[in-house]
Amino acid sequence: MTKDALLLTIAVLGGTGKEGKGLAYRWAKAGYRVLIGSRSSEKAVTAASEIMQLLDGSSSVVGTTNLDAAEQADIVVLTVPYAAHRDTLEGVKAALKGKLLVDVTVPLIPPKVSKVQMPAAGSAAQEAREIVGEDVEVAAAFQNVSHEHLLGEEEVECDVLVTGTSKKARTEVLTLVEATGLIGWDAGPIENSVVVEGLTSVLININRLYGSKHSGIKITGVPQRSTDAA
Amino acid sequence: MTKDALLLTIAVLGGTGKEGKGLAYRWAKAGYRVLIGSRSSEKAVTAASEIMQLLDGSSSVVGTTNLDAAEQADIVVLTVPYAAHRDTLEGVKAALKGKLLVDVTVPLIPPKVSKVQMPAAGSAAQEAREIVGEDVEVAAAFQNVSHEHLLGEEEVECDVLVTGTSKKARTEVLTLVEATGLIGWDAGPIENSVVVEGLTSVLININRLYGSKHSGIKITGVPQRSTDAA
Repeated sequence: MTKDALLLTIAVLGGTGKEGKGLAYRWAKAGYRVLIGSRSSEKAVTAASEIMQLLDGSSSVVGTTNLDAAEQADIVVLTVPYAAHRDTLEGVKAALKGKLLVDVTVPLIPPKVSKVQMPAAGSAAQEAREIVGEDVEVAAAFQNVSHEHLLGEEEVECDVLVTGTSKKARTEVLTLVEATGLIGWDAGPIENSVVVEGLTSVLININRLYGSKHSGIKITGVPQRSTDAA
Repeated sequence: MTKDALLLTIAVLGGTGKEGKGLAYRWAKAGYRVLIGSRSSEKAVTAASEIMQLLDGSSSVVGTTNLDAAEQADIVVLTVPYAAHRDTLEGVKAALKGKLLVDVTVPLIPPKVSKVQMPAAGSAAQEAREIVGEDVEVAAAFQNVSHEHLLGEEEVECDVLVTGTSKKARTEVLTLVEATGLIGWDAGPIENSVVVEGLTSVLININRLYGSKHSGIKITGVPQRSTDAA
C-alpha cells in the first residue's frame, strides 16, 4: 500500500450496522482515517469509540452523520439495509460528486431472502448509479462476506468480487479489499454486480440447507494467485 | 446412487459440443444410458462413438437427432450455444412434457462475453421455462464448469450450483452432479439461475485478467461438507 492510500479518508455510511462496523474496523486497523456515518450521529459516535477500543486507540475513527461523513471523505462506502438504500443516497448525493462510491448493499426483500429479487435497474449498485448520476464512479463489493468474520482476527474464507463503472474504480476498491486482509478479484463492469449481489441469496440458501452460518465463495483455477488462495 | 437412477436415460442436446460431450462422457461412465442429440444425426453418431471409445465400449451412448433424443429420454440436458437456445427448445418442446429439462446454457452475447447480459425473462433458464411451459420442470446447472476438465480424469476444482423450479428437480440434478464426480449445491429457485449464468461472464473476466484458462468457484464455510471440499 502506498503512503497516499493511507492518507485517504473512508466514510462508512450505515457504519453502525454489523457489516459496516466490521469493514470500518479493518480499514482503521490498516491505517486509513475512517468516518462512521449514521442517521443518528450519537449512535455513530458510540460505534466509532467501540472500534477505537478494539484497536487500543491507535487509529482514527470518528462518528458523525451520513451527510457529514460523505462530505469529508475521499471514498464513500454504503452499508445500509436495502430498505434505506435510496433515501440514504438521495440524502448524500450532493456530497458524492467526483468521489468513489462503494456499494455493499444487497437488495434482499424479506421474507424471501433466499430468492434473487433485483430492482428494475438490474441491481442495487446499478440503481445507485442511476440515483447519484454519471459524475460519481460506482463500485460494488463485499456483499458476500459474513460480518461475523470481519471483527475477528481469523482468516476470512471468502473472496471479494469487485465490479465497477471503470477499471480505475475497481482498482481502487481492490486496494481497499487488500487492506481488509481479504482476496479481491476484478469481476468486471457494474452490470456484473447482479451476480455478486444475487450470490448472497444463493449463500443464504446454502446456509439454511447445509447447516452453516457463513458460507462463502473462493475463486479456483488461477495458478498465478494460487499461493494467496491456498 | 440407486439402481433406478442407473436405468435412467439422459439426452444431451447439442451433445456434439465440448461441454455436452464432456457431460455425456461422465454420465455414460457412471452407468447412465446416454443419448447424444444434434441437429445432424451424423455428427451425433460420431460424437457417440468417440465417447464409447474413450470408455472402451463399456457403456451405452447413442447418437441421434435432438428431437429423437428428447423423445426417448427421461431427463433432457440442453448444452447448445445461446444463439440456438430458443430454436432448439421450440423443436423439442412437444417431447418434454412431464420430463425434467436441465439447462446448461449461458446467455453470452459476443463480443462482450465478460459482461452480464441477461434476456428479458431474467436468465436463459427462465426463458426456457417460458418456452416449454409449466408442464416441464426446469433446472439449471453446470454453467461454470470448464469443458476441458470433463473429458479428463483430473479432479474438477469447480462446484456446481443447481437452481430449479422445484426441490424435486434440484434433487434429481444433484444426483446427476454427483455422478459426474463434482460437488453440487442446491442454490435455490430458478430465479437464482441469473447468478450462476452470470457468474460465467465474471469467470471469463477473471480468466482474461489473471491469466487463467479455467477459473471456477468453490463454496466455503460449510463444515458438514468440508471433507468433500478439501
